[in-house]
Amino acid sequence: MPNYTPLVESLPSTVPFVGPETQERARGSAFQARVGANECVFGPSPKAIEAMAGAASEAWKYGDPENHELRSELADHHGVFIENIVVGEGIDGLLGYLVRMLVQQDTPVVTSLGAYPTFNFHVAGFGGRLVTVPYKDDCEDPDALLDAMKRENAPLVYFANPDNPMGSMHSAERVQAMIDDVPDGCLLCLDEAYGEFAPEGSLPKIDVSHQRVIRMRTFSKAYGMAGARVGYAIAHTDLATAFNKVRNHFGVNRVAQAGALAALKDVDWLEHVKSSVRKSNEVIADIARENGLTPLPTATNFVTIDCERDGAYAKRCVEELVKRDIFVRMPFVEPQNRCIRISSGTDADLELLAKQLPLALKAAQTA
Amino acid sequence: MPNYTPLVESLPSTVPFVGPETQERARGSAFQARVGANECVFGPSPKAIEAMAGAASEAWKYGDPENHELRSELADHHGVFIENIVVGEGIDGLLGYLVRMLVQQDTPVVTSLGAYPTFNFHVAGFGGRLVTVPYKDDCEDPDALLDAMKRENAPLVYFANPDNPMGSMHSAERVQAMIDDVPDGCLLCLDEAYGEFAPEGSLPKIDVSHQRVIRMRTFSKAYGMAGARVGYAIAHTDLATAFNKVRNHFGVNRVAQAGALAALKDVDWLEHVKSSVRKSNEVIADIARENGLTPLPTATNFVTIDCERDGAYAKRCVEELVKRDIFVRMPFVEPQNRCIRISSGTDADLELLAKQLPLALKAAQTA
Repeated sequence: MPNYTPLVESLPSTVPFVGPETQERARGSAFQARVGANECVFGPSPKAIEAMAGAASEAWKYGDPENHELRSELADHHGVFIENIVVGEGIDGLLGYLVRMLVQQDTPVVTSLGAYPTFNFHVAGFGGRLVTVPYKDDCEDPDALLDAMKRENAPLVYFANPDNPMGSMHSAERVQAMIDDVPDGCLLCLDEAYGEFAPEGSLPKIDVSHQRVIRMRTFSKAYGMAGARVGYAIAHTDLATAFNKVRNHFGVNRVAQAGALAALKDVDWLEHVKSSVRKSNEVIADIARENGLTPLPTATNFVTIDCERDGAYAKRCVEELVKRDIFVRMPFVEPQNRCIRISSGTDADLELLAKQLPLALKAAQTA
Repeated sequence: MPNYTPLVESLPSTVPFVGPETQERARGSAFQARVGANECVFGPSPKAIEAMAGAASEAWKYGDPENHELRSELADHHGVFIENIVVGEGIDGLLGYLVRMLVQQDTPVVTSLGAYPTFNFHVAGFGGRLVTVPYKDDCEDPDALLDAMKRENAPLVYFANPDNPMGSMHSAERVQAMIDDVPDGCLLCLDEAYGEFAPEGSLPKIDVSHQRVIRMRTFSKAYGMAGARVGYAIAHTDLATAFNKVRNHFGVNRVAQAGALAALKDVDWLEHVKSSVRKSNEVIADIARENGLTPLPTATNFVTIDCERDGAYAKRCVEELVKRDIFVRMPFVEPQNRCIRISSGTDADLELLAKQLPLALKAAQTA
């Protein structure tokens, strides 16, 4: 056997997420509605699709390892310098690099109990010691996160705003206060993957002179390009540049770079997606209420629905929906796991949901 | 400042390769011939281009994190099981994961002096201690690599066959003997990125029951999809599965997965590329000889050309070609750095090379 490091030897073989394709292979049939992974069913901008299709014949060239054009456009978009932007293989890839830069054996790292499991996967993968604080009223709790960070002298804390899997968010003032309260030597990883869906002006202002925050953004959600694997971070120049020490320089697909650039420029499509998501979320909420369930408020492209019973029941609801060809997921831990989570869908997706949810609930109740 | 780990704090900010786009931005003009990164100018299979263009509109879906279809096809292709295949973000990405699994602070790792710098980047990035052995007659030296591996009790040795940057290769028998001689607890990383260009039957047989070798392959070279970032490794089930502990599960672009699958099935296009590469290499060799230089034998999609003087001279040759709009590179270290390296090109690329090489050499001689 290879001589694995003791750390790697000790890691479990669990994976953060089972993909819908894996479930489809196990079921032996395809899902009819794919509303479980907070993907954007409304698709990438037609201009991004065109750009990717056009770039396909150029796929023989390595992508620009500096992602220069895309970073330049992103810098303009956010009013920062190109040196403040780092592009990577999705936020997942960037989280991996960030954890690697700050975490070694037994380093304490703070997150919320039930927050993004891929972050936890990376922390475990580099030997970190995960310190979790509970959600409060279905929101991540900035005060508890800060307290834990200070108590543990943790160099890294993860905070998603808007939050996944609950869809909740905090005001710009609240988050800014959190940023300002991060102690020296600590870094706040502010995951804003769902940021474009948040109400206008509700995210804190970007300030790259601040050394203790890094903001993660992505083309996977509002830009509809989850499969392209383009995420980016906005940070102080020193931190953004430090990624060059560890990142896979040629890791971002050339076709995806072209697509992301086109997507970023298509402001109208983004507005179309946001409006479609809002409408879809309202329909999902209505369907939930019609079935006696409680949709939680959402600042994202999904609706988390309180099934008003325990985790076992919500799990049965998910399973019954899956049986009925609807791919959905749910929060992993108590008390959030009383809920199921449904991503914005097309009209056809929602019609199927409206038809199947009552049947799924009935089956879950009698199981 | 963030509280970086001591290891990351100590790392230099150097990058393994400067991309041609970076040079183009510095020059203020585009290269006319892009023959410096061993990309495949003959392009991806038209069927792969079509598959990627078609998949672009599906980019809103995350790629299958198990890369199931592609791995299944690769398993058939190589006569192994799907569990023996791991797909990642290029060989670069897979090398990063592999190093991470085996290397920690001060772990000795063996490679050849002047071999693939991205491997070295990863070893340094995880704190490994690089042990290098010299090339012998412009070939990597299996005996010296094995000796160093045994002497240092190194858990990992890197060996590229065919080799980059020299284009040389060893016989199947020689490499098989090397594989068989790897001591217990050590792993041979056999980088076969250029394997498809090697003469028929010249690579050792794949045997996934062997625990002490992992073979790296890619769609970046003969399949013409460098920008797509799809590499794969063939290994014993235990090792291939262990990547799941650390890899970015959703890291491979969905469009690229579709493209790679189509590329793999298009056997005719692969033959077309191989034949085009052979012809191009012959022309490059002729051009070199016409200019009094010595092309080395090649089993790859590039020709390494001995300029018969020192590294400073070869460097000037590269610079003068670059000035003349031809992107080329050269080996990094003595004595290989007496050479320049020219990737297979289109007819137009080679015409430009034929026209400009004499001028470049003249300028390099008088500089």
